[in-house]
Amino acid sequence: MSNKGFHVAVVGATGAVGQQMLKTLEERNFPIKKLTLLSSARSAGKTVSFRGEDVTVQEAKPESFEGIDIALFSAGGSVSKALAPEAAKRGAVVIDNTSAFRMDPEVPLVVPEVNKEDLRSHKGIIANPNCSTIQMLVALEPIRQAYGLKKVIVSTYQAVSGAGAQAVEELYNQTKAIINNESFEPKILPVGSDKKHYQIAFNAIPQIDKFEDNGFTFEEMKMINETKKIMHMEDLPVAATCVRLPVATGHSESLYFETEKGALTASDIQGLLKDAPGVVLQDNPAEQVYPMPADCVGKNDVFVGRIRKDLDTDNGFHMWVVSDNLLKGAAWNSVQIAETLIEMEIVTEK
Amino acid sequence: MSNKGFHVAVVGATGAVGQQMLKTLEERNFPIKKLTLLSSARSAGKTVSFRGEDVTVQEAKPESFEGIDIALFSAGGSVSKALAPEAAKRGAVVIDNTSAFRMDPEVPLVVPEVNKEDLRSHKGIIANPNCSTIQMLVALEPIRQAYGLKKVIVSTYQAVSGAGAQAVEELYNQTKAIINNESFEPKILPVGSDKKHYQIAFNAIPQIDKFEDNGFTFEEMKMINETKKIMHMEDLPVAATCVRLPVATGHSESLYFETEKGALTASDIQGLLKDAPGVVLQDNPAEQVYPMPADCVGKNDVFVGRIRKDLDTDNGFHMWVVSDNLLKGAAWNSVQIAETLIEMEIVTEK
Repeated sequence: MSNKGFHVAVVGATGAVGQQMLKTLEERNFPIKKLTLLSSARSAGKTVSFRGEDVTVQEAKPESFEGIDIALFSAGGSVSKALAPEAAKRGAVVIDNTSAFRMDPEVPLVVPEVNKEDLRSHKGIIANPNCSTIQMLVALEPIRQAYGLKKVIVSTYQAVSGAGAQAVEELYNQTKAIINNESFEPKILPVGSDKKHYQIAFNAIPQIDKFEDNGFTFEEMKMINETKKIMHMEDLPVAATCVRLPVATGHSESLYFETEKGALTASDIQGLLKDAPGVVLQDNPAEQVYPMPADCVGKNDVFVGRIRKDLDTDNGFHMWVVSDNLLKGAAWNSVQIAETLIEMEIVTEK
Repeated sequence: MSNKGFHVAVVGATGAVGQQMLKTLEERNFPIKKLTLLSSARSAGKTVSFRGEDVTVQEAKPESFEGIDIALFSAGGSVSKALAPEAAKRGAVVIDNTSAFRMDPEVPLVVPEVNKEDLRSHKGIIANPNCSTIQMLVALEPIRQAYGLKKVIVSTYQAVSGAGAQAVEELYNQTKAIINNESFEPKILPVGSDKKHYQIAFNAIPQIDKFEDNGFTFEEMKMINETKKIMHMEDLPVAATCVRLPVATGHSESLYFETEKGALTASDIQGLLKDAPGVVLQDNPAEQVYPMPADCVGKNDVFVGRIRKDLDTDNGFHMWVVSDNLLKGAAWNSVQIAETLIEMEIVTEK
């Protein structure tokens, strides 16, 4: 730690995303003068290594946030609901990775490549969007800016790590059981707290999060509502079907979208995305170049390929968008918000 | 074998689909008076059990089709191109599971639930559609009949057995290698004869079949073109994105469609599909009831769930369609065409 920089707290430091947050803070050489690691009572007392030093995880309480400049939350919605306001009250800027505050009109919901200006209106809490929303919007925003957006339909291919480290363990344990011809009992997926649990190994489950009354899942409604909020397009038609796959990490998305402007070609879209912030274009069918989840793990970018013009609708396009759901979908977007707050001098050294 | 019935040939009897065809012929108690099993020279001489009797597989040659009433082909496009016309010339009715003749205007392309009347115009060869097309059309046809169809956009989640038995082996071998932390070299998927091969275990590959110049894959163009031909709707806008998953058997599809008629509800669609031929409705979100590939294996039906009305487009709906790609997607649809030919007295006992 140095004398300059910020006092940063990570809440949920021992979880899958918390661990990625710490790794990302290290890799980005984030200006930290003091690091406080917080968690539930259950994980308190554990030791976590950061920049070669052992840091002991403490139980998160309201008073834990005294003196904190930036608090990165990723310990579940109930922890955020209880403690994020307490942290904000004590002067910390909270960047919350749960869904607790995302649709709160007082809370900016931010993908830096899309709407970093919204950070200026924060009142202590900033929400990090849903993983599948973030990567879609990083890919769509350059198109929206240049040509306008009229419609979005997405079908997702989501990795199990989005449901936590236990879900990854379940995928591997089930896979081993099937290969060894042993029996197993699904316990986590699709949703730990829902009534029924299904096999994920060698299967596809069309349910992520619980169902709403309209037949869409919460995950699907997150993609729909968060997109409208982040893009400031309340009336943009957005539809989503979210599906869990036997993939450990890396969400993929099959996207159909229509632009306002007509008479465009796939090359126009490719040209935009080639130089877009946070995007890596991997689009060369002749050489079988396209993004895949197995290739994106550990990388901060959003990978886009398979861009092609719809054969019937002049304004319609299809593309395939892949990103590491634990990084751009969670840890990296959160740390990037923190970096942006500093760059924009919204958070300054005391 | 009995004295009544038909002399049936299965070409490609030792392949993944050929094996399912024989199993289906047994299960359906198909009226066979003689069975001839044919294959490439490589597999000739092998013995296959049918109804408790051993049948020796012979090398397929033009003269093998003398006296055959019905010939089920599933030995690859080049075999069909060479031998299906020879079989037809000798009086056999060919039901071809390859893509060789599907778009030939002289050849009916048939899903019995959709367009069995087209069988009447056959000239010796009938084509079985692509697996992913068949299940989509079984689910869409009742809707088209009742309410009209204006647009279809599909994203697929396809099993590796669609690429043959070797691809299934590759999936399991790669999975074992990853779990045991061993190295492996992809050799089959996404397309055996294409330049590059990629990991399928714990991954998703957005390529099925080779690429066309328009950026779509052949598989995607099959879904698009075959749908228009089977439904006799040359101008129906159809778009497809086809993706290979680490699932052994069972294709899933995320479908968006628009009806001609407006002011419909999800219940209207569910009501139609509840009683539709070849369809099993599995659609109860409150009880987490929806189709999944792991549940459909070994069944002839097309399973439909997650039916919901689009939140923005009055005529728009989403649904999730799952079926065993080796059965309704291949072997069962072929045998069902044969049964329909007999029912409609297009093929009669000699």
